[in-house]
Amino acid sequence: MCYIIKKINKIKNKVINQNKQIKIKGWIKNIRTSKIGIFFIDINDGTSLNHLQIIVNKEIICNLNKKITNGCSIKAKGIIFYNKKIKKNEIKIKNMKIIGHIKNPKKYPIGKKYHSLEYLRSISHFRPRTKIISSISRIRQSLVYYLHQFFQKHNFIWIPTPILTSLDTEGYSKMFEIKNKIFKKKTFLTVSGQLNLESYACAIPKVYNFGPVFRAENSNTTKHLTEFWMLEAEIGFYNLKKTIEICKKMLFYTVKNTIKHNHEDINFLIKYNKSNLNIDYLLKNNIVELDYIDIINILKKKEKIFTNPIKWGTNITTEHEIFLTEKYFKSPVIIKNYPKQIKPFYMKINKDQKTVSCMDIIYPHIGEIIGGSERESNIKKLDNNILSKKLNKKNYWWYRELRKFGTIPHSGFGLGLERLLMYITSMKNIRDVTPFPRYPKNLNF
Amino acid sequence: MCYIIKKINKIKNKVINQNKQIKIKGWIKNIRTSKIGIFFIDINDGTSLNHLQIIVNKEIICNLNKKITNGCSIKAKGIIFYNKKIKKNEIKIKNMKIIGHIKNPKKYPIGKKYHSLEYLRSISHFRPRTKIISSISRIRQSLVYYLHQFFQKHNFIWIPTPILTSLDTEGYSKMFEIKNKIFKKKTFLTVSGQLNLESYACAIPKVYNFGPVFRAENSNTTKHLTEFWMLEAEIGFYNLKKTIEICKKMLFYTVKNTIKHNHEDINFLIKYNKSNLNIDYLLKNNIVELDYIDIINILKKKEKIFTNPIKWGTNITTEHEIFLTEKYFKSPVIIKNYPKQIKPFYMKINKDQKTVSCMDIIYPHIGEIIGGSERESNIKKLDNNILSKKLNKKNYWWYRELRKFGTIPHSGFGLGLERLLMYITSMKNIRDVTPFPRYPKNLNF
Repeated sequence: MCYIIKKINKIKNKVINQNKQIKIKGWIKNIRTSKIGIFFIDINDGTSLNHLQIIVNKEIICNLNKKITNGCSIKAKGIIFYNKKIKKNEIKIKNMKIIGHIKNPKKYPIGKKYHSLEYLRSISHFRPRTKIISSISRIRQSLVYYLHQFFQKHNFIWIPTPILTSLDTEGYSKMFEIKNKIFKKKTFLTVSGQLNLESYACAIPKVYNFGPVFRAENSNTTKHLTEFWMLEAEIGFYNLKKTIEICKKMLFYTVKNTIKHNHEDINFLIKYNKSNLNIDYLLKNNIVELDYIDIINILKKKEKIFTNPIKWGTNITTEHEIFLTEKYFKSPVIIKNYPKQIKPFYMKINKDQKTVSCMDIIYPHIGEIIGGSERESNIKKLDNNILSKKLNKKNYWWYRELRKFGTIPHSGFGLGLERLLMYITSMKNIRDVTPFPRYPKNLNF
Repeated sequence: MCYIIKKINKIKNKVINQNKQIKIKGWIKNIRTSKIGIFFIDINDGTSLNHLQIIVNKEIICNLNKKITNGCSIKAKGIIFYNKKIKKNEIKIKNMKIIGHIKNPKKYPIGKKYHSLEYLRSISHFRPRTKIISSISRIRQSLVYYLHQFFQKHNFIWIPTPILTSLDTEGYSKMFEIKNKIFKKKTFLTVSGQLNLESYACAIPKVYNFGPVFRAENSNTTKHLTEFWMLEAEIGFYNLKKTIEICKKMLFYTVKNTIKHNHEDINFLIKYNKSNLNIDYLLKNNIVELDYIDIINILKKKEKIFTNPIKWGTNITTEHEIFLTEKYFKSPVIIKNYPKQIKPFYMKINKDQKTVSCMDIIYPHIGEIIGGSERESNIKKLDNNILSKKLNKKNYWWYRELRKFGTIPHSGFGLGLERLLMYITSMKNIRDVTPFPRYPKNLNF
């Protein structure tokens, strides 16, 4: 007899392919028995949000090689049929075998009961077996794949910028230092590949990277990790306006395709998180766009509700972001042209000599998702910026040379992957959208 | 008047679109003048192997804002026409402006003369402006994009495994250690995400990662970097045979599509490197497959030509790899079932109790490109392996738990990106296929 091996997401709930012979492999998620000794067993193989129900006779169960419990891995053969009552396909099992049993079922860390997300973090090696984490994993795959596809379609070149570095991009970041005698130099983990990427943008004007970056900060929040993935793009001949345009296009393309391919998972997570994420709204791609000064004026009117001071020259903090995106505009917001003193040396100073040509995109519930700017392409102005930030010109010799020999205007941005993933999955803690999150005191797994 | 902005690779050399008005931006690669004062200038914008020739009158040149030299960035407008003599499209310039000039042209690190690859490494920030490095960058983009596409098409899920770790995957690797007080634990840079990936494969059976890995080894060879990119896949319910099959499929799919989209760049690099890379051969996808023991028997017959000893239990070294792939088989070779003592603890021991179910894929001129194996999925056997390699069971508590609760047979492999890129670009030194290579004493840029 010929059996077809099927992944569970390929067993569509339609009245077709009836009586076909199917082979499946997966893990047992639930076992129920009827009075007449028939077993209804839920199986999943990680490909689908919904389990597949298989119907097994008592005889088959009694003849099994090992005791059957939740969490066992099994393989089984049977005939597919459409259950009109529940409007789902099921499989009548003819043959079944336990592959990996559980010696002590009481000790299996994922029982049938409700597990908190905090508990699941403590068993990060088992949590992909839950609906929550497998859903997030499938959504992440789409998000990242469509990001790559977007950049391929727009003729960008992926550049693997180095993790090990002797240079501090931002000029004020807390970096991890590495013990070593190999490089004969102080060695750090990168906080951003931007400067390296700029050298490629000054030769091949559309480039991007996508890789891990690090912050040696002792911050214990729901939105920070010490290790996270950033997508950075640098684009020759682009100004701020064109950079904002391509960011919006990128977000729209990626989110649209992810929603299309993962609507089941996304809807499940919306319910699970009791989220008010509005998918239709996301697809309208409307983002408010305002200057920093206008944002300050809006915030000033509500000054009393904030604990942090609001005046020109101060940072927009979390409480302000929440107010703007969740209460005032009820939408993502693009804030442009910040004061130069709160932004890094590489940003281009505007004609007003006070602000820099930059933008942050902030999202409801998440905060900053994207930060970008025009880069200073004039050597004299760049040197002034380096000086005014009290950085050492010598450290940036090659970055400065890009401005001395055939310089071009260019802009770039960085997107925090986990932040965007939080938004689209409605998850509230960044530690739950990363397979093995790194944060203070946590280097497990 | 309406001008269309064109990237240079989009200006196809066909007798169509004549007399269209075109805007271009790019860098000057070469300047020639005719006796009657017409300037023939080669322009490139990083999108194309071949430069675009523009024709500029003396008048326009004289009226330029700055002195025109090689390496200047310019923007220009003009009319496209087909030059029958050279069978190429050219542009008669009406308007031109220098964007970024070069104050001291003698100091521009990329002159017209021949530059050695060693020299180019010393100016890694400028080398993407050369044909060699821009070609490699475009090929890398294709290679990586089609790798991601292959895994997406085969329903794999990308998992970002952590870089910061407290665990040594291989059990004997030289790892970089990080100074920090944040994790309250000894912290290292990962050598492989395999163990983490396995925990996902034991829930969602098709997973892969793609990220940087590190080796704190003082090795100064043309095939090693201290930081390089690895693609690793773990596949539940797969044995060695199926793993070899999917590796071959992956290589074939990726190489086929890269050749299709980058044949010009690949052919240029074949000529540049005087390589005997046979593209037709690559597309036949024939790879010799032999057991380690058979390889040893072949090598023993030629024992005299090798400096390293050959007997059962020894490693296959570079000289053996060269002999096998370049002289004996003249093809890539898959070597299977190595002795257990020279392979890591996680590999599944064969029934003979002497060998492990593993494979290495070695390529002519490159050496190992892929290494993979079945993973030991039985807890007792795994514990024996850990013991026999003198490792500490406690460190692997969660990895061991995967075998205690619903274990499944599974296999995986790792592909070295730079090695594959070396092969397809015909480049002989791994430092030239990485934008900013890290190796002993080199942490520049």
